[in-house]
Amino acid sequence: MTIFQKILDGEIPCHRVYEDTQVLAFLDVSPLSRGHVLVIPKEARATLGELSDRSAEAIGRVLPRLCRAICKATGATDYNVLQNNGSAAHQAVMHVHFHIIPRMGEQGLGIDWPAGGLEDDAADLAASITAATTG
Amino acid sequence: MTIFQKILDGEIPCHRVYEDTQVLAFLDVSPLSRGHVLVIPKEARATLGELSDRSAEAIGRVLPRLCRAICKATGATDYNVLQNNGSAAHQAVMHVHFHIIPRMGEQGLGIDWPAGGLEDDAADLAASITAATTG
Repeated sequence: MTIFQKILDGEIPCHRVYEDTQVLAFLDVSPLSRGHVLVIPKEARATLGELSDRSAEAIGRVLPRLCRAICKATGATDYNVLQNNGSAAHQAVMHVHFHIIPRMGEQGLGIDWPAGGLEDDAADLAASITAATTG
Repeated sequence: MTIFQKILDGEIPCHRVYEDTQVLAFLDVSPLSRGHVLVIPKEARATLGELSDRSAEAIGRVLPRLCRAICKATGATDYNVLQNNGSAAHQAVMHVHFHIIPRMGEQGLGIDWPAGGLEDDAADLAASITAATTG
C-alpha cells in the first residue's frame, strides 16, 4: 500500500487543499517551492496510462482552479505541472500524482531540455501512435 | 498569434496523432525523446490557470489513452507529463500545452529535484489555498 493510499484512507494526515468525490489535493511534504501541491485520484493506479478516463478527466477539470488558487495564495505567477510515470521518469510513489510547482525565483522545478530534431520516420511514428489510440 | 494557433488553423502542418472537438495532439518537432507528443486545447489560452474547466477535463480524459498509445508505438514504459506556465517556468509558446515525454535510457526530460521541507505555516498555507479554490 502506498503512502498516498494511507493518506486517502485517513491513516496518515495531510495538509488538504481540495477534495471531491474523485480527487484529493494536498501540500507536498517535501516541496520544491512554497505552495507545491500534489493532486491525486482516489482511484488507486500506479501510472497515468492505467488510470480510468473518468478519474483523469476529474483531475483535468480541477487543475485550472487549483493553479489559480495556489498562485493567489502564494503570489506566484509562473508554475509547472508535472506527472511522472515509472522510476526511470522520477516517480517515487506508485499512485498517480500531478505536481503543481510554483516557480519562485530560484525555487521550483529544475528542468534540463536537451531537445533534438524529428527523425526521418516521423510520419510513420505519428501514424503508429494514432493507430494505437484507437486500438 | 502563436505557432500552435497556426497549427490549429491549418496554416502550419503537424504530425497529428489525435484530435477531437476540443483537443489536438501532435509530435513535438524538437523532441526530447522518440514519441514526444504535445497535447493542446483548441481553446486559445496562455496558461492552465486561464483554461476553462471544460477544455481542461477534455485534455485530462484523453491523457491516459495517449500515454498508452505512445508507449505501445515506441516501446517506452516510463514517461513524464509536463505542462509549463510562464517564461520563468520554461514555457516557450503561450498556448497551453501538455508534453508527454517518453523516458528512453538517457533520452527524455532532465529533472532536478532540490526538495526542501514544509514551512512552519503549512497549515495556514493549505487553508489559504483551500479558501482560494472556492473564491
